[in-house]
Amino acid sequence: MSGTLTIAGLGPGSDALVTPEVSTALATATDILGYAPYVSRVAPRPGLTLHPSDNRAELQRAAEALRLAADGGEVVVVSSGDPGVFAMASAVFEALELAPQYQDLPIRVLPGITAMLAAAARAGAPLGHDFCAINLSDNLKPWAVIEKRLRLAAEADFSIAMYNPRSASRPDGFGRALAVLKDAGCGERLVIFARAISAPDEKIVTLTLDDATPEMADMRTLVIVGNSQTRRVGRWVYAPRQVR
Amino acid sequence: MSGTLTIAGLGPGSDALVTPEVSTALATATDILGYAPYVSRVAPRPGLTLHPSDNRAELQRAAEALRLAADGGEVVVVSSGDPGVFAMASAVFEALELAPQYQDLPIRVLPGITAMLAAAARAGAPLGHDFCAINLSDNLKPWAVIEKRLRLAAEADFSIAMYNPRSASRPDGFGRALAVLKDAGCGERLVIFARAISAPDEKIVTLTLDDATPEMADMRTLVIVGNSQTRRVGRWVYAPRQVR
Repeated sequence: MSGTLTIAGLGPGSDALVTPEVSTALATATDILGYAPYVSRVAPRPGLTLHPSDNRAELQRAAEALRLAADGGEVVVVSSGDPGVFAMASAVFEALELAPQYQDLPIRVLPGITAMLAAAARAGAPLGHDFCAINLSDNLKPWAVIEKRLRLAAEADFSIAMYNPRSASRPDGFGRALAVLKDAGCGERLVIFARAISAPDEKIVTLTLDDATPEMADMRTLVIVGNSQTRRVGRWVYAPRQVR
Repeated sequence: MSGTLTIAGLGPGSDALVTPEVSTALATATDILGYAPYVSRVAPRPGLTLHPSDNRAELQRAAEALRLAADGGEVVVVSSGDPGVFAMASAVFEALELAPQYQDLPIRVLPGITAMLAAAARAGAPLGHDFCAINLSDNLKPWAVIEKRLRLAAEADFSIAMYNPRSASRPDGFGRALAVLKDAGCGERLVIFARAISAPDEKIVTLTLDDATPEMADMRTLVIVGNSQTRRVGRWVYAPRQVR
């Protein structure tokens, strides 16, 4: 008798941003897998096994989750934010494609508040008009693809949410991304650095792209570059609804 | 003594997708404003005044919310999905800019599960790689802007979430959008029509863009066009994490 596999989004950090659907799934799980800092957000209890793993182990973790579910577990794979946005859901379906014996398993994906929505809400409404989301990590795609997408996004006048802008192992990409956008004529656009949103050390900084420097971002930062119309009102930043 | 203004996202429809933070705001509100079908999702109770209004009345509604909050109300403006994505948050900041006397009001934006995240979760993980979100309504922007963004999004190989694809007053735009994408060489891409996600009459259809027709979308549909790598595994659709 097989169990179930649920891929759940924990939101950006605060329990007040976890959907009831996800809370219920966590409360009835037998096994929870994920990157260690996310698994640690779930309280231990009898009958629940926590399986924390390393950041880079997505595909392995996904395969293990499928195995545990096939063995009868009520298995939950947790992601920060939304599991479908630069997170575990794609890895699970990739693993499923590699292991067709599991294709009849009951699988559910439960959405969550992804980082750009939480960051945008704290800043005002910078995603109130057409926008795009780009993962700045070049672990799984060539840097040339990122650069091309940034140029086209600037030309389309999208607001741009940048995930994973900068890490210890990728210290230089974000500076190059800023340079690409300056070169594309976006120097006067507003940029929001949203760090650790909904955590106790949350911090928001807004300035123009010309004044932004690479060191302003780290692994816990979500960056939103406004479109050409994005403006301030008081302490808020928003994208007007109308474009003429 | 002034009150507060909260702009809250109700998610796509199911109560299981309303964050605890939003539920708390609704439970302590004195006034709730919004498009009538969204306001009707809030149960009446003593001490709460419901202010339903028409779909097109965003700016008026936002101004009224500011006035009620300045008069001491605990005012909540509700949107479906996330208030910052093609919803009420931008309208409130626009109204605030027009009424500087309210700029010291305590304002909060509470994020919600926006339609594309709910739709993507039901379909699999079609937003697992870089993507964009485009509002297909040309009420507040020229059609030429929409068309240009679609062409550039195709060239960037973004997955594309299309909000408000088609309505009774805009029957033709979605067909033109499909034609633009076909013309841009996207005919073989997978397209997901996600209708009324998390409601009892929820429906998901996936097919290629070449097989998609305008009538497949209506006001309650969110459309996701995959990128060139988007693929099926069993009944799921996902964007692989890796691009070579």
